[in-house]
Amino acid sequence: MKIEKEEKQLTVLVLGGDGYLGWPTAMHFAARGHAVAIADNLQKRRMEEEVGGEPLFLRPTLQRRVKLWNSLNAGHYIALPPGNVIDIAQNGPALIDFILRFEPDVIIHYAEQPSAPYSMWSRSRAVNTVVNNSAGTLNVLFAIRELKRQNGKDAHLIKLGTMGEYGTPNIDIEEGWLEVEHNGRKDRLPFPKLPGSFYHASKVADSAYIEFACRAWGIRATDLNQGVVYGIDTAETTLHTDLVTSFHYDAVFGTALNRFIAQAVVEVPLTVYGKGGQTRGYLNIRDTLQCVALAAQSPPNAGEFRVFNQFTEQFSVLDLAEKVKRVGNTLGLIVVIDHIQNPRVEKEAHYYNPKHTGLLSLGLQPHLLTDEVITEMIQKVITAQKAIDRDVIAPRILWRPVEEAPSI
Amino acid sequence: MKIEKEEKQLTVLVLGGDGYLGWPTAMHFAARGHAVAIADNLQKRRMEEEVGGEPLFLRPTLQRRVKLWNSLNAGHYIALPPGNVIDIAQNGPALIDFILRFEPDVIIHYAEQPSAPYSMWSRSRAVNTVVNNSAGTLNVLFAIRELKRQNGKDAHLIKLGTMGEYGTPNIDIEEGWLEVEHNGRKDRLPFPKLPGSFYHASKVADSAYIEFACRAWGIRATDLNQGVVYGIDTAETTLHTDLVTSFHYDAVFGTALNRFIAQAVVEVPLTVYGKGGQTRGYLNIRDTLQCVALAAQSPPNAGEFRVFNQFTEQFSVLDLAEKVKRVGNTLGLIVVIDHIQNPRVEKEAHYYNPKHTGLLSLGLQPHLLTDEVITEMIQKVITAQKAIDRDVIAPRILWRPVEEAPSI
Repeated sequence: MKIEKEEKQLTVLVLGGDGYLGWPTAMHFAARGHAVAIADNLQKRRMEEEVGGEPLFLRPTLQRRVKLWNSLNAGHYIALPPGNVIDIAQNGPALIDFILRFEPDVIIHYAEQPSAPYSMWSRSRAVNTVVNNSAGTLNVLFAIRELKRQNGKDAHLIKLGTMGEYGTPNIDIEEGWLEVEHNGRKDRLPFPKLPGSFYHASKVADSAYIEFACRAWGIRATDLNQGVVYGIDTAETTLHTDLVTSFHYDAVFGTALNRFIAQAVVEVPLTVYGKGGQTRGYLNIRDTLQCVALAAQSPPNAGEFRVFNQFTEQFSVLDLAEKVKRVGNTLGLIVVIDHIQNPRVEKEAHYYNPKHTGLLSLGLQPHLLTDEVITEMIQKVITAQKAIDRDVIAPRILWRPVEEAPSI
Repeated sequence: MKIEKEEKQLTVLVLGGDGYLGWPTAMHFAARGHAVAIADNLQKRRMEEEVGGEPLFLRPTLQRRVKLWNSLNAGHYIALPPGNVIDIAQNGPALIDFILRFEPDVIIHYAEQPSAPYSMWSRSRAVNTVVNNSAGTLNVLFAIRELKRQNGKDAHLIKLGTMGEYGTPNIDIEEGWLEVEHNGRKDRLPFPKLPGSFYHASKVADSAYIEFACRAWGIRATDLNQGVVYGIDTAETTLHTDLVTSFHYDAVFGTALNRFIAQAVVEVPLTVYGKGGQTRGYLNIRDTLQCVALAAQSPPNAGEFRVFNQFTEQFSVLDLAEKVKRVGNTLGLIVVIDHIQNPRVEKEAHYYNPKHTGLLSLGLQPHLLTDEVITEMIQKVITAQKAIDRDVIAPRILWRPVEEAPSI
């Protein structure tokens, strides 16, 4: 069992540990010798069925993957709660019971509906997104409070937010807080947000609930406003085929670069929304794990609502498509770029300068988006290319009704 | 039937029309000749039962009050939906159906759990507050979108927010938006918020959902960040005893001044939290109706998220208590002030300078808190003093566990 000696050994609860990021995160902590448990309601699997977009590399049940991990002697065991599943949003008491027994030092909260298009698909899905994400976050906050009251333990909440909470303001984006000077007076206040979907708005709401709980209850929390994550493998997923994480390439759950890679592999045009000038922060999935681990090792003070912008590089959507096209071409793929009407309501040309020094100062060593990284991703996706369903890649969910959609 | 000739005649839907503000608002619009309907889930009545705090002046069922109003020939009829009740939060389709048939010009959205202490009472009540308020607001937004798509009608959403969304920043509070200058660049962004409870945070979330819907869908909305409302009677409630609105004086649903009046009348000490330096904006219930009517007559443009700070004067809690004590004494009541430990987490000394010129510029003529107003309130409460339950006035819901409560 490989234990990083210089690290504080932690008890880590990963909420949403069945997902694209949650599962590799759980293994990452376990591999470094931390005691890990996973709670998940498996709701994402049901949503994938609705979308008709299964992950590219078929992933065993959570229970089977945990059992496999625990058989490999690759690190600390991963535990599941009694009954295997906890619905974080619907069953607060079960979450509280489990947290009181597991007594985590760190709770990493990925247990949210993560797709902007899903949240814009219909009224009921918008409501479900907001209810799931808000109720889940409140339940986690009350569980942390209960752990403090009953066991005297000050768990550190690490919550995954999104850079999409900020939108694209015409000023530099700071890390969660802004020193405001107004009419000759000053204060440090939450950075103003312009979320781009009900999903993003639900994350704005989460941040408000957590910031309040830090202020009122003295909870310690780190809000990681994450950019768009790309990548398939981490150090742990490569240990066994069945430890794979859920790689989505469809229009609902697939993120921009992952989707382009799949399109390049099956030689359908890369779907750039509008002119493709939308610039966002991006990071490799390996860096998501690194960032969360760094945050866990350096908790904020009690009562502190600490925010980091979690990305390593910024690209426009067109930049990304052109990178994939160029690398794809060198690999012999015929890759073309298609500019399609933007299904979202967002600016195609805008100022974008978000700060992201906090995690670097904690020691983040970025894995940048080199041609080698794109090559590796393409080669891995080629191994499963027969499974790619071309019909789920084109966006069908429009932010506005058809008759109102803006021209590109 | 009294019709204000200079007013545009509107079709007005009042959501939460059974409540303290919703019911007088519905009558106010009806009295001025507007076509009014009420939708309410009557959830507040169930919450009052939980708290054990019924309104001071017993109020008939919504159906009976509507029937009574409609028999008085005091204005336009008030309509109820088929089946009388719609759960705005739980039954989006019923809300949409009704809105498509009623085709309101204006939707006034009071249908929210309105108490900060209630939201801090327990985990499940925090979750219910947030789920009820968020799901209700999303359902209203989707209903407005559907009305636009199917009937081509651009309804104006008037949403009641709260000044408590802003908290007490060390800078002037603007009306919803802030011109930010940062690192040499400028933008107009949502004013940063520091909500003081999960209830207040749920209103921050609502504002984010509505602002997004305005930006993405071109909805027109007015967000009224209201101060603390006081008062019992409006022009319409005085037309008949049974048209009374629900006046709460308990620690959960009673607002500061209303609670002090009840305490003065039964000669129990006025419960000032801590030093009582907490300064907030206040307004008379008559001005709530006036503000909402002014906003309805001057809708924002399509796509505009317009915010007004809705209050007329600002007082510290101690100011208010001293006013009530002085006026109570002149009426022969023995009124004393008690400084009790603050159950909330809030600053007892702070800068407070919120702007509130928007509604004045639309024509608001404030009813200020004169000694005569306090006298009238005391005299009215005296008529029901035997019904006052002293046991529900003292605060029992603590923002922090007892052992952590800050000393005053």
